[in-house]
Amino acid sequence: MNEFEIIEHFFRQAYPSSKGDLVLGIGDDAAIINVPNDSELVISMDTLVAGVHFFEDASAEDIAYKSLAVSLSDIASMGASPRWITLSLTLPEKNMTWIERFSSSFNALAKEYSLILIGGDLSKGPLAITVQVHGVSPKGKSLRRSGANVGDLIYVSGKLGAAAYALQYIQNSTSLPEPAASEKQRLHRPTPRVKTGVELRDVATSCIDISDGLLSDLGHILKASKVGAELNIADIPYSDSLKKIDKDLAIELALTGGDDYELCFTLTAGLPKDVLDELESICPVYCIGTITSKSAELLLMDENDEPYNIKTEAYRHF
Amino acid sequence: MNEFEIIEHFFRQAYPSSKGDLVLGIGDDAAIINVPNDSELVISMDTLVAGVHFFEDASAEDIAYKSLAVSLSDIASMGASPRWITLSLTLPEKNMTWIERFSSSFNALAKEYSLILIGGDLSKGPLAITVQVHGVSPKGKSLRRSGANVGDLIYVSGKLGAAAYALQYIQNSTSLPEPAASEKQRLHRPTPRVKTGVELRDVATSCIDISDGLLSDLGHILKASKVGAELNIADIPYSDSLKKIDKDLAIELALTGGDDYELCFTLTAGLPKDVLDELESICPVYCIGTITSKSAELLLMDENDEPYNIKTEAYRHF
Repeated sequence: MNEFEIIEHFFRQAYPSSKGDLVLGIGDDAAIINVPNDSELVISMDTLVAGVHFFEDASAEDIAYKSLAVSLSDIASMGASPRWITLSLTLPEKNMTWIERFSSSFNALAKEYSLILIGGDLSKGPLAITVQVHGVSPKGKSLRRSGANVGDLIYVSGKLGAAAYALQYIQNSTSLPEPAASEKQRLHRPTPRVKTGVELRDVATSCIDISDGLLSDLGHILKASKVGAELNIADIPYSDSLKKIDKDLAIELALTGGDDYELCFTLTAGLPKDVLDELESICPVYCIGTITSKSAELLLMDENDEPYNIKTEAYRHF
Repeated sequence: MNEFEIIEHFFRQAYPSSKGDLVLGIGDDAAIINVPNDSELVISMDTLVAGVHFFEDASAEDIAYKSLAVSLSDIASMGASPRWITLSLTLPEKNMTWIERFSSSFNALAKEYSLILIGGDLSKGPLAITVQVHGVSPKGKSLRRSGANVGDLIYVSGKLGAAAYALQYIQNSTSLPEPAASEKQRLHRPTPRVKTGVELRDVATSCIDISDGLLSDLGHILKASKVGAELNIADIPYSDSLKKIDKDLAIELALTGGDDYELCFTLTAGLPKDVLDELESICPVYCIGTITSKSAELLLMDENDEPYNIKTEAYRHF
């Protein structure tokens, strides 16, 4: 099969060539979309590179899942509803079995969120995947990093540190207790908090997804919103395995470990209980601190209300 | 500089964070666009990989130019006006000089077409560049591959074969006459026919850009339009260097060589002269044949009106 036949066989047939707002899907020089008049278009692109963002020997299914999930996570953090995807797949060889496994996992996750693959590219080269997700929000309603106000409460969805711990365990397994399968899974198959993001659209003052570690990503909210924050170490929702290891390491992994893909967001204090109940019905959320006026400063407080100093710098991509 | 500082320094500062239809540019988890209500959104993504789509030792400036130009060419072939770009840059090392040169060339070409970079990604890994261009057309007006009708005339913009000849010359220079600098340039810096595409929007019945060679790409029009074609070898606009070499090789390069990034399009026969004059005022266009009813068959005729058989298969990506 040549490039076009591969796309036809593994991807194009899985998606409609036009449907509703999609005027033209895979199969021409470009795709055509009618963005609904009352909506703004929200766009995010992410690339995953073999040996950098995933292990060289990761399964085709996990690679496909993670490639799509991390871009969905960005769209979730904007409170947008994901709709259309483009995919550029660069592969060292035309391995049909691998492509079949990749596409079935990719197509299944896309289906779960009713996404349509509308185009992309297939190239020969070192294994890498670029996904762009296109979502929609009612005009003016998308969440940003910049809306946090002094006095707002800081929340995170889900539990933190599972992916970072799984990575530590894989790289240094002899000295650490084995994480549960569900926690290992978080490294390869993070859950994009799409429904939580959409629910937050009308209530959160700011939002970001935690891809580089809580402190680094909350730091972006603080910088964009020109505020500070105080976090209570004891209120962080540590992933289960972190409760079995050295406390300082657990804190470091939960606060600076990458790849959580949970949402960190701010809510005005004193919201009605039903707002939080509605959020909780989708995914547990945890209040971990307060927005303060100290510009761009981030204070960590321990259980005795004493400042806590963390040991390492946040993860950096590059 | 970390990832965010590099983006800030080399890219973000070169573009507005919001302007007109752009609600939010680089610097959040995603970009936000208000697509005009009377427009449809046209989207194309392309990846270029070092050693596959360009030479490993190509200049940062040429790589940047070509990465953007090839995606612009796809948008041009739809007759759309390019507006917003996303860029994913994967680099083996954080070489600031290289990034500075890449970004200045990329930003300059973007400026030439009034494009705004709205987001993307920066990763460590083998050199590769993915660009997605987002354009707009009046609703229902974008060109497709599927509209060619029996009796339509087949045209191409510009001259063919320069890039393929430059590649042959570089790989096998001793036996071939040296191409002019402007022809060598076509391999590294193809001209996306954006203005021609927009002009064609109201007159062409189908359009495609020639990235894989005329026969291969015209073949896509024939397949999508369920028609055949007859091309006259003598009417092909051969690039100047091709006139100095063996005739069969010249025909092969012009008809099957990749990387032309000219437009191939069909026009109803008998259009008023001013339509063609208007097209000619932007870029020369050449009538090379006729759409026939022979489904998916492509006949080549020589100057004696005898069938001509070409020797090689069209270039394949993969």
